Amino acid sequence: MSYSIILGKQDFLESLRGKTASFLLAGSVTKTCEIPNLSQAGIPGKLHLTPVLDAEFVMVKQVRSLENIATTPKGVPTPALITRAVHELKGFKEIELLNLGLETLPKIEHFTVHEFGLTPSEDITKGANIEALSLFEKGLAFAQEYVPKSDYTILAESVPAGTTTAAATAKVLGYKSENYFSSSYKNSPNELKKEVIEKSLSNTNESMDIFEKLGFVSDNMIIFSAGFILGLQATPHKLILAGGTQMASVLLVVNSVLKTMGGELDSSKISLCTTKWIAEDKNSNIKAILEQLDFKINLYASDFDFSLSSHLALKLYDEGEAKEGVGCGAALCYASINGITKEQITQKTESFLNSN
Amino acid sequence: MSYSIILGKQDFLESLRGKTASFLLAGSVTKTCEIPNLSQAGIPGKLHLTPVLDAEFVMVKQVRSLENIATTPKGVPTPALITRAVHELKGFKEIELLNLGLETLPKIEHFTVHEFGLTPSEDITKGANIEALSLFEKGLAFAQEYVPKSDYTILAESVPAGTTTAAATAKVLGYKSENYFSSSYKNSPNELKKEVIEKSLSNTNESMDIFEKLGFVSDNMIIFSAGFILGLQATPHKLILAGGTQMASVLLVVNSVLKTMGGELDSSKISLCTTKWIAEDKNSNIKAILEQLDFKINLYASDFDFSLSSHLALKLYDEGEAKEGVGCGAALCYASINGITKEQITQKTESFLNSN
Repeated sequence: MSYSIILGKQDFLESLRGKTASFLLAGSVTKTCEIPNLSQAGIPGKLHLTPVLDAEFVMVKQVRSLENIATTPKGVPTPALITRAVHELKGFKEIELLNLGLETLPKIEHFTVHEFGLTPSEDITKGANIEALSLFEKGLAFAQEYVPKSDYTILAESVPAGTTTAAATAKVLGYKSENYFSSSYKNSPNELKKEVIEKSLSNTNESMDIFEKLGFVSDNMIIFSAGFILGLQATPHKLILAGGTQMASVLLVVNSVLKTMGGELDSSKISLCTTKWIAEDKNSNIKAILEQLDFKINLYASDFDFSLSSHLALKLYDEGEAKEGVGCGAALCYASINGITKEQITQKTESFLNSN
Repeated sequence: MSYSIILGKQDFLESLRGKTASFLLAGSVTKTCEIPNLSQAGIPGKLHLTPVLDAEFVMVKQVRSLENIATTPKGVPTPALITRAVHELKGFKEIELLNLGLETLPKIEHFTVHEFGLTPSEDITKGANIEALSLFEKGLAFAQEYVPKSDYTILAESVPAGTTTAAATAKVLGYKSENYFSSSYKNSPNELKKEVIEKSLSNTNESMDIFEKLGFVSDNMIIFSAGFILGLQATPHKLILAGGTQMASVLLVVNSVLKTMGGELDSSKISLCTTKWIAEDKNSNIKAILEQLDFKINLYASDFDFSLSSHLALKLYDEGEAKEGVGCGAALCYASINGITKEQITQKTESFLNSN
């Protein structure tokens, strides 16, 4: 198992070989997920539970806030299974949850949950109603107080309907976004997404500053994470953004903040790690999103797929249903620089499904 | 896969089981390598590139300063492949390069390169022209400032023609050296080596002190490393010398310095780890070199060989061509105390050759 280099060079990731990692899971709910058929990241009507269940499964291999593992109507299991498989094969030194607006807390003990006094953001068609500047500053402050317990940090997310808010974020900041953002569906509900984004953007106008705009169209994870990235710049600590086009959107926000407020980013301290399913997705283009940045960024994609599996639910990943989330792409890259094999991850992931 | 104990007891190495290791690669050029047919550690006429290419390959699995992996005329691939295989299977926590006089720097980012203001040393037949005392003190100072990022440190080397300077070093210090030092060739060019060493020693005389003598006949790696070993004595940090007869020569220098300048060595903090190919080499005798020391030293040899491989280029190792270098013996010992199997290393090493 290895990884491919989509942008930049292998040196960043190679320098982390053999080192320990902290895994931060940013869990957040945007009520945009309540729009029917927009996202398949969870159980219809209960998508707000997805980040809670993902956190529980990655941390303790149990879904405590619901009877069954979150599966989509077609039965695509959450990528939390992959992240958990990696964690079992080569444990992250630390897993911590950032509560960026969950409806309920995961039922876990002994794991750190960072609280920021946040509630779920609203449906962006009605205006997300986020105090974006204050939230951004919370991300900054958290980074400045962050005491790494390992050699580097992986920042992952679980935000149902997050690709829609990510695309709206890119668009409101003036970046090209059409056909660039992915979907949890193989057949992305493009018309619906477009409608949601346009309706969302109609609440904003050009006289608004960045944070006013983001407060209407974005989500808590994106805004907080942009602050976290910039706050971490004051330290030498290395950060892997774990995700697909949502994390790319975080970087667009960073870029816009830097352009507006001044300042520079030493992007050699950060990289984005994603899955093969995102890297090869014909309906989105993470590379093109990142090429709009004014700074260079290393983009890696794991070469893992489920070609060794005969499990139909897992094979759906290779067919384009579900592609990324819960940091599974970065977890797979982490596995590959720690000597874990494709066979091991396939078997471990399968074992979770067979035991149900 | 395991290791054998040539001198001492297994306790030193066993105490490191499960611990993390930093890998320091001392890269150096002695222009002695320009003497035709003296060494086969690299591409004829370009042996000065070998340490640079070795560093690149171990760090980022790419040869950037040349098109192809350094192979000898007979096609023996560099032992850097073995070290890299181990690093992929069980990563060293840190890989750092000590620039002990390279002609060009490796093209790498994100990896620490320690600079000491050194240039390649000269051909020893003309006098190496090394400011040996100052260089020794640089090694001492580096050790005193060294902040270990892991539980123990492996000090490896890549110095083409280094066994010749190692033998000259032993001889000028009055140790028995004939037939004790190995060669990168199966059929060592003994007459040529002897000639080079004698010519080199003819530049020295008995009225010279240790460092004056070393300045004529030795190389930067040997002198610096002797200082490093002694400097590290002030700390409880454990050190593995990774190599064959060149590292043995470093210990002879340490021994002579202690005898001349006084002082004691707590050799329970250091050991030497090498390959089976060196331990069983009929044309050299690392054990006999180390038995001349006034202190005891643990000497281990990995039991790895390429008997599981059908790759002809790798089989050459088992036939006596190339035997050690780039810390491969210590890397193999490290692998064996970390549960890595002979099959895994064989397959991983083969995969590098097959992908070229």
